[in-house]
Amino acid sequence: MTRWRYGRAVSFSRVAVLGLGLIGGSLLQAVRHAGIEVVGYDVDPATAAAASASGFALAPTDAVAAHGADLVVLAMPLPEVPEALRSLAPHLGPRTVLTDVGTLKAPVLGAVRKYVPDVTFVGGHPLAGVEETGWGAADPLLFRDCPWALTLETDTPLDAWLKLAGLVCDLGAKPVPTTAAEQDAAVARVIGLPHVLAGALALTGLAGGPLGLSLAAGSYMSGSRVARTRPELVTTWCDGNPGLVEALDDAIRHLTSARDALAASGSVYPLAAAGHDARINWEHRQFEPVELPASAAELVRHGQTGGWVTAVLRDEGEVRLLGMRPIA
Amino acid sequence: MTRWRYGRAVSFSRVAVLGLGLIGGSLLQAVRHAGIEVVGYDVDPATAAAASASGFALAPTDAVAAHGADLVVLAMPLPEVPEALRSLAPHLGPRTVLTDVGTLKAPVLGAVRKYVPDVTFVGGHPLAGVEETGWGAADPLLFRDCPWALTLETDTPLDAWLKLAGLVCDLGAKPVPTTAAEQDAAVARVIGLPHVLAGALALTGLAGGPLGLSLAAGSYMSGSRVARTRPELVTTWCDGNPGLVEALDDAIRHLTSARDALAASGSVYPLAAAGHDARINWEHRQFEPVELPASAAELVRHGQTGGWVTAVLRDEGEVRLLGMRPIA
Repeated sequence: MTRWRYGRAVSFSRVAVLGLGLIGGSLLQAVRHAGIEVVGYDVDPATAAAASASGFALAPTDAVAAHGADLVVLAMPLPEVPEALRSLAPHLGPRTVLTDVGTLKAPVLGAVRKYVPDVTFVGGHPLAGVEETGWGAADPLLFRDCPWALTLETDTPLDAWLKLAGLVCDLGAKPVPTTAAEQDAAVARVIGLPHVLAGALALTGLAGGPLGLSLAAGSYMSGSRVARTRPELVTTWCDGNPGLVEALDDAIRHLTSARDALAASGSVYPLAAAGHDARINWEHRQFEPVELPASAAELVRHGQTGGWVTAVLRDEGEVRLLGMRPIA
Repeated sequence: MTRWRYGRAVSFSRVAVLGLGLIGGSLLQAVRHAGIEVVGYDVDPATAAAASASGFALAPTDAVAAHGADLVVLAMPLPEVPEALRSLAPHLGPRTVLTDVGTLKAPVLGAVRKYVPDVTFVGGHPLAGVEETGWGAADPLLFRDCPWALTLETDTPLDAWLKLAGLVCDLGAKPVPTTAAEQDAAVARVIGLPHVLAGALALTGLAGGPLGLSLAAGSYMSGSRVARTRPELVTTWCDGNPGLVEALDDAIRHLTSARDALAASGSVYPLAAAGHDARINWEHRQFEPVELPASAAELVRHGQTGGWVTAVLRDEGEVRLLGMRPIA
């Protein structure tokens, strides 16, 4: 009789986390909390000192951190990724898996193919932002129940993907199989677009003058909330993503049609009703458990239809994959 | 020596609240909590029975409720206001003050001028929405610290305005002096626009398919939150407000410029940065106490510049007005 075990024991034995901001710092803590050896690195000495003071193993350079790790996590800001890859290139072994935690996956995939083409790379994107940033806000439970996109291109080794998916499950998160292109197109609509709309609302609200600012209440507050994000971060989530141009075209078309209706003494009702249905349907989605084949194409299809992985079980060479999928 | 007293004792002696949904129901409870006699009416027998079971005085018709009241509050949905005014017309005495609690002030002012042109009307708009609706969600503390627009047209008797402002202060809210036209233009940007943008976001997010819905997290959730509002309500806050056409034009211009920048390999940075500044400046506004002249023009100017009234004090015929204004 086969006894299925959770993936933890067979996932990674040593993880290096490079960059210890909110996401990297939380990951360092969460991975140790999962019982896996982990070493951190941060270019900022104060951040490294704070992590070290909390009892974590810190490396003096990214290369030292990566040495001997079978999973290396790029958790530095996107603009620093190419330089990090150049510096890491000689230190990544043939069995090392490389991943990242950035919002857009195509730019990182492009940099990996340019600087470390022979390394096994699985792009990652935990949907776990909070308003705070930095090591001080890091939380080992940050990833509980959060979707975590994991890219599976046609040349991604499935075994590496499954090991990483197993780790993500161990952290309490929900691995969503996808490709870099599809995740970026999706993220354009549910991350890029809300940030651009929040900026436009914050700005347009202000243009009404001080009276409007006095009367601004709940709807202005929630609608413009993510305009609180540092604009430097917003640009790394938006710029260079072709899907965002398409999403903005769609949004502008809806807004223009509501605007024209109003100007002709008509109503915003069609947009309000369609938006209401979309939001309520989103909230009410329901899911059912499913057993998944260990096939890259099937997994990507599972992600496309709104599913995720809940467990990666193994016994010797055999793998068993469980997941959840939306009830149609 | 003059002893200034708070307005309560000299504001209204009997208040009628017509319509006992979230706002009307909360007002019924808050006015009684302020020690003022209050009678309610609701067209829905179940709502009236629930209010009666909670120990409130209920009238069998709106006319009976309004009889003998020196303040009558229209708290029914906007589409029902004209019919209510026709029905109330013979029952409103020359000393009765009429107010309402709707989002847009021009439509109500127009209906009042048409159906009860001789009645003293002060339009009101408490910015106190929550997601729930109906008598069951009513809360006597709903208005604490909430801005409450009170309209002051050139023909509005100042004394009636001051009495109502005093009551609003007694309920813990912040009376904002304004005109119907100016409040509607302001509300277009901070209530109408956020609801239209939320609808566009909810809808455009959905159009990306199930993968995007799985990856939707905090920014989609807060950005589309008010798309949960019933579309019938959204239309009463938006339709017929010319300021919303202008606000949408502004928002569409900002979005188009971000879209064009992205399409030309540029950045959303200018919009993200300007929106960020607008939102942060809004959060960081500071205020200082000010003594206000009892002059309609000065009060409207005070509202235009972001100020509100904090207390209406009286001794015999004399009135003293305190307020807060933004520190420039």
